[in-house]
Amino acid sequence: MNIVDIIEKKKIKRELTDEEIRYFVNGFTDGSIPDYQMSALLMAILLNGMTDRETFAMTDAMLHSGDIVDMSALGGTVVDKHSTGGIGDSTTLALAPILACCGVYVAKMSGRGLGFTGGTIDKLESIPDFDTALGEKEFFEVVKRVGCAVIGQTANLAPADKKIYALRDVTGTVNSIPLICASIMSKKLASGSDTILLDVKYGSGAFMPDPDSALELATKMVAIGTLAGKRIGALITDMQQPLSDHVGNALEIVGIVDVLNGKRNRLYSEIKEVAVRLLELTGKYTLQTAEQAFQQAIDSGDALRKFAQMVAAQHGDESYIFHPEKFVIGTRDDVIADSDGYVTQMVAADIGRAVTRLGGGRMTKADVIDFSVGVVMRVAIGSRVCKGDVLCQVYHNNGRGLNEAKDLIRNAITIGDSEPAPHKIAYAYVDKNGVELY
Amino acid sequence: MNIVDIIEKKKIKRELTDEEIRYFVNGFTDGSIPDYQMSALLMAILLNGMTDRETFAMTDAMLHSGDIVDMSALGGTVVDKHSTGGIGDSTTLALAPILACCGVYVAKMSGRGLGFTGGTIDKLESIPDFDTALGEKEFFEVVKRVGCAVIGQTANLAPADKKIYALRDVTGTVNSIPLICASIMSKKLASGSDTILLDVKYGSGAFMPDPDSALELATKMVAIGTLAGKRIGALITDMQQPLSDHVGNALEIVGIVDVLNGKRNRLYSEIKEVAVRLLELTGKYTLQTAEQAFQQAIDSGDALRKFAQMVAAQHGDESYIFHPEKFVIGTRDDVIADSDGYVTQMVAADIGRAVTRLGGGRMTKADVIDFSVGVVMRVAIGSRVCKGDVLCQVYHNNGRGLNEAKDLIRNAITIGDSEPAPHKIAYAYVDKNGVELY
Repeated sequence: MNIVDIIEKKKIKRELTDEEIRYFVNGFTDGSIPDYQMSALLMAILLNGMTDRETFAMTDAMLHSGDIVDMSALGGTVVDKHSTGGIGDSTTLALAPILACCGVYVAKMSGRGLGFTGGTIDKLESIPDFDTALGEKEFFEVVKRVGCAVIGQTANLAPADKKIYALRDVTGTVNSIPLICASIMSKKLASGSDTILLDVKYGSGAFMPDPDSALELATKMVAIGTLAGKRIGALITDMQQPLSDHVGNALEIVGIVDVLNGKRNRLYSEIKEVAVRLLELTGKYTLQTAEQAFQQAIDSGDALRKFAQMVAAQHGDESYIFHPEKFVIGTRDDVIADSDGYVTQMVAADIGRAVTRLGGGRMTKADVIDFSVGVVMRVAIGSRVCKGDVLCQVYHNNGRGLNEAKDLIRNAITIGDSEPAPHKIAYAYVDKNGVELY
Repeated sequence: MNIVDIIEKKKIKRELTDEEIRYFVNGFTDGSIPDYQMSALLMAILLNGMTDRETFAMTDAMLHSGDIVDMSALGGTVVDKHSTGGIGDSTTLALAPILACCGVYVAKMSGRGLGFTGGTIDKLESIPDFDTALGEKEFFEVVKRVGCAVIGQTANLAPADKKIYALRDVTGTVNSIPLICASIMSKKLASGSDTILLDVKYGSGAFMPDPDSALELATKMVAIGTLAGKRIGALITDMQQPLSDHVGNALEIVGIVDVLNGKRNRLYSEIKEVAVRLLELTGKYTLQTAEQAFQQAIDSGDALRKFAQMVAAQHGDESYIFHPEKFVIGTRDDVIADSDGYVTQMVAADIGRAVTRLGGGRMTKADVIDFSVGVVMRVAIGSRVCKGDVLCQVYHNNGRGLNEAKDLIRNAITIGDSEPAPHKIAYAYVDKNGVELY
């Protein structure tokens, strides 16, 4: 077998065999296929596509490039939720304790952020002493005892994906549905959960520009997960504006504590939708009983206490969960409306970029995150504003990045004359039974 | 400017600006753009194409990456002929002296072969003591005095092309019309001639599989050459079988001497067609007077003597030209017809590969060529053969590669029951006035 022949074959849009796909995934991972040949192949895949069979074979080859976590020793249902990424997406932090309260295990290995704000792991580290690097044994012990734990990825999961993604990132080959699908699913299938809910986002802050392309990606991922024997479903959700009013690191923990305290907002609605769908997927709940269980976990205060328990089990200072005013937050400045009207549009990605400029995200892997900075949105799409109103509170440290951040935010928010159509949080749900539009 | 943005732009099929094209050609040549980004871009170009404007800009950027030869000191018309490459294509060796006899200069910088048989330079080196590495001064002096000279490329012509071609060769990005066009034309425009005839080949032994794709490539190259101020035309010719009956190195010199002695065969017809078109292009001849001048050069013996004069001027032993029986040729073996019928098809590339197996070509740049080996075809497409007839004489050295070569040749020749349609040597001619079909 020969990599040039494989490139030539994909170039003329012929279907690759499983053997050919394993050959290039393994060869690139072990270094025998150089990056300049792999990037030509990735571009040919991006432009000529992959069939479902090819996408499954690529996922499978990447999955088997590293460890596959075995969680059967937990002796219960293990659920996982994966978001394709967005601005102010801290849902995992609330979902873990809520789902644990509902009797399923959440053993989450999560990532750090790059480009926009922090990742889930960064946000958790804004809680003093929180340990995101538990060893495998302690991680399992916390999951077993508390019901949930969230750590940084330690196991050698799908190393092929890590290497391929790094190349895609610098060769214009990120936005390919089969490649995104194989990247996400190889890690999900390696991480040992039996029930998976994918949150596929579309809009200005997401990979996928529109709901239809997000639905196409979701449908492919659900097909692959089902083929691999998982209970899997996907929500298609809106990322045309930040998901949480709070964007940053400590600020997003504050936003999550609000939700666990029962505050109704967009973040709450999204968390509820994900939790209910995930509980139904396990087969232990109907949509009705799942909704009741969710409500009970919030209203009783159990979910908030479970969060604090997880924080304590991971050596963090749980008092911050009950007293979020203890978080050190930067100095406030405001972005002000310069005209009357309705908020008609937001460039969510630019609000993420603004937080990074303040120091709340990384431009390179080596950057150190400032947990105290971020923004609190005071408006959403559809809000009526008057000239002089506060659109957004900006929390900075000694003015670092402040002017750039304020400019980015001001330009990210469009104020128009006519009220926009209401934005739904979810556009569709898809599982092995098909697509359900909201 | 940023290479990823340029890749993204070509990926969605948008036209690149001249600045963007210069940026990636120069950046890749100076090493600031890594090969893995360039190969992704090349694949995007291959699949999404380039407009004529982009192709011209790429040619221009590659042309200016190195030296541009100035031949104005010769004080006359300087012609060049470029073949896109084929098996048994030794036309340059006859054209140089014929054209010199017709009063135009031929100052040819030529290449070595890789993959199939030798290149023009290799073939010339089978003449004892022939020097293909004259210094610039001596080269010009020989051209001025004799009218023609052929040397290996010494000047730093289009180094961008050399680097880009090496990457294309290993990333499945060779067969792109705009990239082939920019590669050929950047070198042609840098080499200092004012009148250029391109011989664009199609068929089993060529880049282009069929006459239409060859015509498309030719039309683009003529447009670019015209835009660059050259007198330029292109012939589309058949490479479905070896051009010369003689394929090898010394053997091809023998074949050329036959032509210069007036032997009428396919090679003679092709050389005549190229010479007449090229002379007409200079503006000094009509098709009629060009044909007369060609005939005069051959029939008078002037062209043969001019070839000997060029060999002598380049320090070679001219006696070989008048006594080609002096060439050391390998031991003869024959490929025999195993059935009656007509030769209906040939895989010209496999006949080239056979000669390489015998030692007459290079698999890697370091290989040393055995000038004495090769084949003499005894049949052409359309020949009537009987079982037991000799199809091809194979000249080998101590049996090296003999069995493989004979197998390749036997399988390359299809014998069928019905007489194939006659093969024309040329399919079309194109210049700034348009296309003329033969």
